[in-house]
Amino acid sequence: MNDNIILLSHDEQQLRLSRVRGLMKQAGLDAVLIADFANLYYLTGRVYAGYAYIGGRDGEQMYFVKRMENLQGDGVVGIRKPEQMAESILIDASAVIGIELDLMNYNMVKRLQGIFPEAQIKDCTSVMRAARAVKTDAELQMLRRSGVLHEDVYRRIPGLYREGMTDIELEIEIERALRLEGNLGQFRISGDTMETYMGSLITGDNADEPSPYDFAMGGAGLNPSLPTGACGELIRPGSAVMVDLCGNFTGYMTDMTRTFSLGSLEKLAMDAHQCSIDIIERLVTLGKPGTPASELYNAAMEMAKERGLHTYFMGHRQHAGFIGHGVGIEINELPVIAPRSRDILQLHNVIALEPKFVIPHVGAVGIESTFVVQDFGLECITNAPTEIISLT
Amino acid sequence: MNDNIILLSHDEQQLRLSRVRGLMKQAGLDAVLIADFANLYYLTGRVYAGYAYIGGRDGEQMYFVKRMENLQGDGVVGIRKPEQMAESILIDASAVIGIELDLMNYNMVKRLQGIFPEAQIKDCTSVMRAARAVKTDAELQMLRRSGVLHEDVYRRIPGLYREGMTDIELEIEIERALRLEGNLGQFRISGDTMETYMGSLITGDNADEPSPYDFAMGGAGLNPSLPTGACGELIRPGSAVMVDLCGNFTGYMTDMTRTFSLGSLEKLAMDAHQCSIDIIERLVTLGKPGTPASELYNAAMEMAKERGLHTYFMGHRQHAGFIGHGVGIEINELPVIAPRSRDILQLHNVIALEPKFVIPHVGAVGIESTFVVQDFGLECITNAPTEIISLT
Repeated sequence: MNDNIILLSHDEQQLRLSRVRGLMKQAGLDAVLIADFANLYYLTGRVYAGYAYIGGRDGEQMYFVKRMENLQGDGVVGIRKPEQMAESILIDASAVIGIELDLMNYNMVKRLQGIFPEAQIKDCTSVMRAARAVKTDAELQMLRRSGVLHEDVYRRIPGLYREGMTDIELEIEIERALRLEGNLGQFRISGDTMETYMGSLITGDNADEPSPYDFAMGGAGLNPSLPTGACGELIRPGSAVMVDLCGNFTGYMTDMTRTFSLGSLEKLAMDAHQCSIDIIERLVTLGKPGTPASELYNAAMEMAKERGLHTYFMGHRQHAGFIGHGVGIEINELPVIAPRSRDILQLHNVIALEPKFVIPHVGAVGIESTFVVQDFGLECITNAPTEIISLT
Repeated sequence: MNDNIILLSHDEQQLRLSRVRGLMKQAGLDAVLIADFANLYYLTGRVYAGYAYIGGRDGEQMYFVKRMENLQGDGVVGIRKPEQMAESILIDASAVIGIELDLMNYNMVKRLQGIFPEAQIKDCTSVMRAARAVKTDAELQMLRRSGVLHEDVYRRIPGLYREGMTDIELEIEIERALRLEGNLGQFRISGDTMETYMGSLITGDNADEPSPYDFAMGGAGLNPSLPTGACGELIRPGSAVMVDLCGNFTGYMTDMTRTFSLGSLEKLAMDAHQCSIDIIERLVTLGKPGTPASELYNAAMEMAKERGLHTYFMGHRQHAGFIGHGVGIEINELPVIAPRSRDILQLHNVIALEPKFVIPHVGAVGIESTFVVQDFGLECITNAPTEIISLT
């Protein structure tokens, strides 16, 4: 392992720091103190136990490391407890310091506040979210690499099916194929409203089982301790099999869903799947820098309504309130593609669009792909075939 | 899916509630408001999005559900936002309410505080941790079932090895075998100091790579975004292969490590492995209700020192500061088996003991098993063979 804490190239790190500093200035923050693993990975190219301190001016950054004390580099300081940071961080008593108040537990925030008793503490969660929402070229490269590997495994899914398989048995074979291709397995999620193992594979009535998590689709899961996705149901003739498994090959995740079938599906399901493909085709030209995210949602909902499919759109017994989301280090990044979202698409946002339908007794149909927002529209980076492919 | 929110039997739920209420009283809490998924699962037998409100008196409990609004049962109230709980919860203005301040993000705590502006808010994280540390008979049953399945897969590990495999290739085959046996995959961890996919498999020098996480062992991992465990290293003759993969078959996890080898290992490694087995044998008779957890740690460290092995004990370049931990719904429960732990073993604590050694160039050796604290000592519930088994 490389013992230097900064695994990013110098230019790449400066680019990210200058982006963060620009947003800090807009938010009135003199400094931020970062502890979230995903944010540390963004700032340094590695996950470590500790903190990154970013001051407002160039060169004002320090990396406090609690374990792996052998890590080296400019501005790296080993600490045993956070209070020791006070010896190294010199700021005005009246400074405004950003902490991730939306991610860090209450007790830890109070402890950090105690280190800077005179400073004003503000939330910097949204600063980091906004910085990470616009990907750098190096990040796009990671995402493209994930996309190619993700898609390569999805193309092989029909070959993994054997007659008589349950949903979970097929999922396990796909998990294995993904892992052998280099998938890290980890499905990194910001906050505490979602959990999953490696994603979801749902078929038949299980697609209509509501889930407590903020995913687009549900599924009962194998156990009430993790109620999402496959439930051990036999894959039956005439049912759809929706595969939405983790694309984390690089520390950056692509999000891709494809629908398979056992034999042919009823017309309603085929129509809904085609509607999903058509929605994506429409959004690909609509989504440009400056487009409100809500406009994408509204266009999708309108198409579902026009075709009389809105009852099934984004769920049947329970409906998800969004059709897409930013993706990168985590699965739930900005922008959010939802009716009341105030997000505006920016050049090099990376978004997953997932206009899906739940058809009672058949299962879930539709596709999801990951896109880079470009000047000409949305560039797809997960290019597995979009039609429903029969498993046999 | 069962639409009743309480999946526990009536008696089982009352048992857990009375345990929580006893600890609430000791902590001076009039009520607790719980949101953490693991704690909700403990209180109801299912994970849901929302809150459990537990008042101090029998029958004072309510379950607020944000999604899956169809969930039913006594005391179940659907809400869209937490503020709506104020309409249902009637408490004295001066009440002391417990919230999970060690687990819940700062912004959410402030929001909940706003619902009860006159109440005094205290931390209830440790109340829930203490309640969950002593397992009920129903929980022990879940853990025993996980143990049997976990052990069944570990026995089959040598048959999964093929010549020329890397660490990650062998791990993937074990992951698949675990999943086919019903493993949920999820490695549930409390707090934000650890992450992993499904656990760890380490061989050779990778065992000596420090990790930022609070696991006993390290490993570089496949990517700096998840620096733990297998790194893609070839399994070489003369090296040890330590397998420490997830035992979550029931929502309750067993924790078990076994060591395999390719061919024979050098004497130092064999001696260290035997020391680990001997330490466990010693601790099994020492660990009874009333034994201080620190005493177990000290006995283990003393044995490692007596045999001149302390340089390698619990790591080589970096040393872990504990030899065991409680386990159940999560991997890091109470008690903590560490030198400065104040925990005292209680009847029906469930603990994983993992006296391990890192031998440079060979890898990690030693075993870990999960035990129930009984009056007669520690009862092992993960009974795969303990000797080093050759993969070929």
